[in-house]
Amino acid sequence: MSAPSRPDDGSQTLTQLGKPTIQPASPEDATLERVPAPYRDRRYLVRFTAPEFTSLCPVTGQPDFAHLVIDYVPDQWIVESKSLKLFLTSFRNHGAFHEACSVQIATTLVDLLNPVWLRIGAYWYPRGGMPIDVFWQSGTPPEGVWIPPQDVPGYRGRG
Amino acid sequence: MSAPSRPDDGSQTLTQLGKPTIQPASPEDATLERVPAPYRDRRYLVRFTAPEFTSLCPVTGQPDFAHLVIDYVPDQWIVESKSLKLFLTSFRNHGAFHEACSVQIATTLVDLLNPVWLRIGAYWYPRGGMPIDVFWQSGTPPEGVWIPPQDVPGYRGRG
Amino acid sequence: MSAPSRPDDGSQTLTQLGKPTIQPASPEDATLERVPAPYRDRRYLVRFTAPEFTSLCPVTGQPDFAHLVIDYVPDQWIVESKSLKLFLTSFRNHGAFHEACSVQIATTLVDLLNPVWLRIGAYWYPRGGMPIDVFWQSGTPPEGVWIPPQDVPGYRGRG
Amino acid sequence: MSAPSRPDDGSQTLTQLGKPTIQPASPEDATLERVPAPYRDRRYLVRFTAPEFTSLCPVTGQPDFAHLVIDYVPDQWIVESKSLKLFLTSFRNHGAFHEACSVQIATTLVDLLNPVWLRIGAYWYPRGGMPIDVFWQSGTPPEGVWIPPQDVPGYRGRG
Amino acid sequence: MSAPSRPDDGSQTLTQLGKPTIQPASPEDATLERVPAPYRDRRYLVRFTAPEFTSLCPVTGQPDFAHLVIDYVPDQWIVESKSLKLFLTSFRNHGAFHEACSVQIATTLVDLLNPVWLRIGAYWYPRGGMPIDVFWQSGTPPEGVWIPPQDVPGYRGRG
Amino acid sequence: MSAPSRPDDGSQTLTQLGKPTIQPASPEDATLERVPAPYRDRRYLVRFTAPEFTSLCPVTGQPDFAHLVIDYVPDQWIVESKSLKLFLTSFRNHGAFHEACSVQIATTLVDLLNPVWLRIGAYWYPRGGMPIDVFWQSGTPPEGVWIPPQDVPGYRGRG
Amino acid sequence: MSAPSRPDDGSQTLTQLGKPTIQPASPEDATLERVPAPYRDRRYLVRFTAPEFTSLCPVTGQPDFAHLVIDYVPDQWIVESKSLKLFLTSFRNHGAFHEACSVQIATTLVDLLNPVWLRIGAYWYPRGGMPIDVFWQSGTPPEGVWIPPQDVPGYRGRG
Amino acid sequence: MSAPSRPDDGSQTLTQLGKPTIQPASPEDATLERVPAPYRDRRYLVRFTAPEFTSLCPVTGQPDFAHLVIDYVPDQWIVESKSLKLFLTSFRNHGAFHEACSVQIATTLVDLLNPVWLRIGAYWYPRGGMPIDVFWQSGTPPEGVWIPPQDVPGYRGRG
Amino acid sequence: MSAPSRPDDGSQTLTQLGKPTIQPASPEDATLERVPAPYRDRRYLVRFTAPEFTSLCPVTGQPDFAHLVIDYVPDQWIVESKSLKLFLTSFRNHGAFHEACSVQIATTLVDLLNPVWLRIGAYWYPRGGMPIDVFWQSGTPPEGVWIPPQDVPGYRGRG
Amino acid sequence: MSAPSRPDDGSQTLTQLGKPTIQPASPEDATLERVPAPYRDRRYLVRFTAPEFTSLCPVTGQPDFAHLVIDYVPDQWIVESKSLKLFLTSFRNHGAFHEACSVQIATTLVDLLNPVWLRIGAYWYPRGGMPIDVFWQSGTPPEGVWIPPQDVPGYRGRG
Ligand SMILES: [Ca+2]
Ligand SMILES: [Ca+2]
Ligand SMILES: [Ca+2]
Ligand SMILES: [Ca+2]
Ligand SMILES: [Ca+2]
Ligand SMILES: [Ca+2]
Ligand SMILES: [Ca+2]
Ligand SMILES: [Ca+2]
Ligand SMILES: [Ca+2]
Ligand SMILES: [Ca+2]
Ligand SMILES: [Ca+2]
Ligand SMILES: [Ca+2]
Ligand SMILES: [Ca+2]
Ligand SMILES: [Ca+2]
Ligand SMILES: [Ca+2]
Ligand SMILES: [Ca+2]
Repeated sequence: MSAPSRPDDGSQTLTQLGKPTIQPASPEDATLERVPAPYRDRRYLVRFTAPEFTSLCPVTGQPDFAHLVIDYVPDQWIVESKSLKLFLTSFRNHGAFHEACSVQIATTLVDLLNPVWLRIGAYWYPRGGMPIDVFWQSGTPPEGVWIPPQDVPGYRGRG
Repeated sequence: MSAPSRPDDGSQTLTQLGKPTIQPASPEDATLERVPAPYRDRRYLVRFTAPEFTSLCPVTGQPDFAHLVIDYVPDQWIVESKSLKLFLTSFRNHGAFHEACSVQIATTLVDLLNPVWLRIGAYWYPRGGMPIDVFWQSGTPPEGVWIPPQDVPGYRGRG
Repeated sequence: MSAPSRPDDGSQTLTQLGKPTIQPASPEDATLERVPAPYRDRRYLVRFTAPEFTSLCPVTGQPDFAHLVIDYVPDQWIVESKSLKLFLTSFRNHGAFHEACSVQIATTLVDLLNPVWLRIGAYWYPRGGMPIDVFWQSGTPPEGVWIPPQDVPGYRGRG
Repeated sequence: MSAPSRPDDGSQTLTQLGKPTIQPASPEDATLERVPAPYRDRRYLVRFTAPEFTSLCPVTGQPDFAHLVIDYVPDQWIVESKSLKLFLTSFRNHGAFHEACSVQIATTLVDLLNPVWLRIGAYWYPRGGMPIDVFWQSGTPPEGVWIPPQDVPGYRGRG
Repeated sequence: MSAPSRPDDGSQTLTQLGKPTIQPASPEDATLERVPAPYRDRRYLVRFTAPEFTSLCPVTGQPDFAHLVIDYVPDQWIVESKSLKLFLTSFRNHGAFHEACSVQIATTLVDLLNPVWLRIGAYWYPRGGMPIDVFWQSGTPPEGVWIPPQDVPGYRGRG
Repeated sequence: MSAPSRPDDGSQTLTQLGKPTIQPASPEDATLERVPAPYRDRRYLVRFTAPEFTSLCPVTGQPDFAHLVIDYVPDQWIVESKSLKLFLTSFRNHGAFHEACSVQIATTLVDLLNPVWLRIGAYWYPRGGMPIDVFWQSGTPPEGVWIPPQDVPGYRGRG
Repeated sequence: MSAPSRPDDGSQTLTQLGKPTIQPASPEDATLERVPAPYRDRRYLVRFTAPEFTSLCPVTGQPDFAHLVIDYVPDQWIVESKSLKLFLTSFRNHGAFHEACSVQIATTLVDLLNPVWLRIGAYWYPRGGMPIDVFWQSGTPPEGVWIPPQDVPGYRGRG
Repeated sequence: MSAPSRPDDGSQTLTQLGKPTIQPASPEDATLERVPAPYRDRRYLVRFTAPEFTSLCPVTGQPDFAHLVIDYVPDQWIVESKSLKLFLTSFRNHGAFHEACSVQIATTLVDLLNPVWLRIGAYWYPRGGMPIDVFWQSGTPPEGVWIPPQDVPGYRGRG
Repeated sequence: MSAPSRPDDGSQTLTQLGKPTIQPASPEDATLERVPAPYRDRRYLVRFTAPEFTSLCPVTGQPDFAHLVIDYVPDQWIVESKSLKLFLTSFRNHGAFHEACSVQIATTLVDLLNPVWLRIGAYWYPRGGMPIDVFWQSGTPPEGVWIPPQDVPGYRGRG
Repeated sequence: MSAPSRPDDGSQTLTQLGKPTIQPASPEDATLERVPAPYRDRRYLVRFTAPEFTSLCPVTGQPDFAHLVIDYVPDQWIVESKSLKLFLTSFRNHGAFHEACSVQIATTLVDLLNPVWLRIGAYWYPRGGMPIDVFWQSGTPPEGVWIPPQDVPGYRGRG
């Protein structure tokens, strides 16, 4: 079973996909990459679920953890998923408040992709017995596009 | 208990249902078949759930897996389900990106059936710790038709 | 603890409720019965959940199974539930395709009751690894009536 | 840790709260009580969940059981919860059909409270393998009030 | 791994965050604090989930427990989460009815933050076999802001 | 579809099965009936799950509710299930403490059936925020008999 | 993608697998078939899960439904699964009590296969609000064989 | 429906049950009461589930929360449940480490009841992102007594 | 953030890990690799969960799917996980019965690793409405090693 | 409400609890601390659940994530939980294989505490579509100590 021949889909210009990479040390060091969206005449939703996100508290340096779900409707570009993974990983030693960190990720993607629409749900692990969730979207959801709910379960303590 | 007499429902022209078949080697080799829709004066939704979908990564040749849910509202035709099963199976050795593959399946069905409306939810198994879901619909959902949510649970890592 | 006195609610004319009955051999042999709806000046929803439905494949004679949920808003009549149970049981040796069988049940009820609105969700057990669900409603849901979602979980294979 | 001083909230006129009571023998014997609603300038929803409801079948005298959820938006009055509990208990030896019983409870509350809006979801235990749910609301839900879904799971037989 | 340098985000004026504090003895003794909202040109939702809430019954002095979920859309200010935690803790020896207590928390936050929108879902533990939930929002939800459902499961007794 | 011919299984002597019956007013008025066990040379477990149990508090007269699961291994007799249902129903207006009531049911069955082994799990609805479960078995479980766990979920308050 | 060459595994003597068959009208008419077990020097467990079982009540002729789980450890033979499916289907118009029916299925398999060990868990749908489960095994489970629990959830009424 | 006549079960000597009580201010102020066990010739398990437990951190004074499950096999005495409830409530303003607090509750009950066997599972809400559970039993579980697992779900963070 | 220095753990001799590889076309073409086990003086369990397994039916060539869980206790060797992944992938176009395929995978691993103990749970997707699970272990589980249950949920049809 | 007076429990010698700390950069830099166990004459189990664990792959430097559950029975010492939290956090930039990392954590605790018994369950997030779990215990579980199962759910892909 050999690899199929390489498709002509813009992935040839990518610098990270299918190549050894190192983890970027900060969001500034990360290189988010994009490729032309397939089916640019259609409006579909792409959802990334990232349960492996971690950053640092800007005040105490203590690690924070979050489960992130990112939804977007591409226009001309889609994000290359390995570069997105590396971008998210780059927050590992970065200090930011929950609200700021969540919105920064969304903002960076909006700047790169100029999508029809994008939203982020950031479900942070509890601190002080009380988790914070942050929900942001770039605008009113586009009509006629199918956007399922994220349905991440709420925190419920014990029992 | 013998089989009931054969209904006069257009299934007589089918080439695959109730007959031995071989697995098509690629989507191009598959023959999607259609029969006249029953109750053509009514708007109902048909949902196929296909948790046994697999294709290949176009870059690495590595197998990918997805849980697919396809919803459509027939107009004059319905798809014959065994031929749909064989069509989906034909992606087994086919290389395609998640987004392209998901939309291709929907597109092929739209071309065959010219339905009132169709959508696909493609829930891919995680790669790099982060799954991609793709959601597409052929247009704004028709009014007056009952379209339940797909409610496929999100990926949640471990724990 | 004796039985309460019989209410004056139209149930006196019923031929099956509270009496020994035999299973009807086919949908044609079943007698669906109705009684005057209580609170005919109000619009409420009645939901029947029938996880014990079975019929036959019209081509192979093989048993099929479905989980049915029927919602309706009565106008002048409600269906008597024992007669509904017997009607559903009468499909036990009846051959019909999934789509046809699902819509036939709904149609029969609409003809009997002339309700404000009715819908059926038919969740069939998988064949060929891929279940079919059928969703139909008699029209746009009436305004001002409370109609909760049916929320039957999707099929998910194994694991 | 002593009891806080008694608030001036209208509870002084109540005849049942905080006093020994006996179970009323029928709905007619029960005394539903009301107190002035707090925050009468705001529109909030109060939800009672009553999984301990039981009544009798009017035909056979056999016990019936239901899980009830009652939602309402107070206007000038709220129901006193102990009297509601006793009112629901009073159906214990009362015979009524599912549909009639469910709507009667809601009607009685509407008459007492004259609320902005009220609904009941009555989820009856299965009889003949097939449960009945009854859903009623007093009118179109008021705009601008937050009314979460009741989300009581459907019946699913076994397995 | 040292703590990152302190951000210039208004947290310097806070009197409780990152400092030893004592539990306030009553809501009147608690000091809710606010900081300037990040991304004040954007409308995002912040959700706090507080499963550790407890107060006293105003009549009997008996402890009550609730699971609270607070959603709000900041305008110029966000609440500092440690001060919110201490505020909620201050109800520990405070007597208040369910409805009054739930709306008081929301009201206090609205007064402090003057948010675009705020709501509270208060899910109280059962008393007399029947829990009360209270749902309130400050107004119609703002358009174009993403507000997921709270999805706290209903009470179901046993079994 | 007519009823199959009546089996020769001892059910002919029963006084309640397949006949109209009235609800017994107390456990003393109930008539538990037994029939010869089928397969008396084999050791199998029979499990009854009774989520519709209710009795009265002996002190306050307030209704109590429980979810009961009864497991037993027959020796020469099995209990006739309709008579068991009526026996359980007879506690409806009977006052007994949780522990006494639970063990009484088991004891009565042991006396009637003299089974190889019997146990009861009684899962009572919460009172005072704290449910009581009672577990009793007639002796050490017999070796070589398959006895699955009852797996009734614990109470968890809210959230 | 063509079918692989036929293995030499005893399946050549089968009369039903891979051939058109008709549904047997009763258990007596069904032909259970067996093939030599692979890996006869090893002790493994084979589990069949059959959620599509239905039979008739011997007294009333009313359909009964059950979810069956059959576990066995082969010795020299394994059951051919299509013939097992047809055997189970043959109970469709057969009248038998829950206990008798459950043990009969197990007995028939033991007679055919003479397995090292076999058990059946029969989880019947509720009648009279109270389901019956039947559990039987052919003897003490063999040592050194891995036998996972069946973990079929209990019935819980509503709510 | 009047209250049943009072049973002769030792409850006459109780000082708290069925009477107004005040919350004890500390464990030392609480009065645990006991009554003679019913069925003293039998070994049954009594399980209390207490999801409303709260105490204080001895170092910081911050409230802690736990979900407690207490199992015991009575010998001559059972604990009166209202007094147990008040005893647990008395920890509300008491400072103790998780391990010490959990074992203290069990120890106090052992001293009062001298039971055949007792255990406590204390499931504490997370602090620092990491909950502590404490499990203790008074000795090896007695043979021949049925002791189901507590099955409180583990903490899983978010997602 | 650069990659840590390479450990001296035997991984240097591996031919597939951290290198581009092609999918092996059959189990015979796959190269399972092993490395010396860490902590060879300890007995720990390693569990692989493989929800992406697929093979072909040897009779019809139709794809089969399974969810596999493999547990083993290493002695001198552990399997290298990328080579295990490629080995499992190699069944993609291989025809084998469920029982044979499941045991073959386990056997191959036992031959390679000579572990203290190994087991496989193979949970196959339903065919004919009835899934087959296969459970095998290499011998009696070793004493003193912790071996949690696999807890893969059973198949339950629909509803 | 002031903090209770400091207990005499050995916590006075601790260097990290209740004091500002910095995250240790590696396991070697972390200082695990212990205090005398309360109730040293009793055998209880302490469970830590740590869903916020992350380390690095030793070959690629890519972050790995795990959900850890640690159970131990103290002898003379218990671990101080803040120091344990910091110790686990210190793996954040440490490279180690799953098996080695999991056992190292357990080993370090055994060396510090010399407990009666200790085990670790390490549930790693999937890589290559296939997670690894590692289970180790220090010896046969002690008799007479209550040790509940960890019950972390298995990975199940999608759907
Ligand atoms: Ca939701
Ligand atoms: Ca949903
Ligand atoms: Ca997680
Ligand atoms: Ca839904
Ligand atoms: Ca799956
Ligand atoms: Ca819902
Ligand atoms: Ca089922
Ligand atoms: Ca919901
Ligand atoms: Ca369990
Ligand atoms: Ca809780
Ligand atoms: Ca179980
Ligand atoms: Ca219930
Ligand atoms: Ca468990
Ligand atoms: Ca299990
Ligand atoms: Ca079902
Ligand atoms: Ca388990």
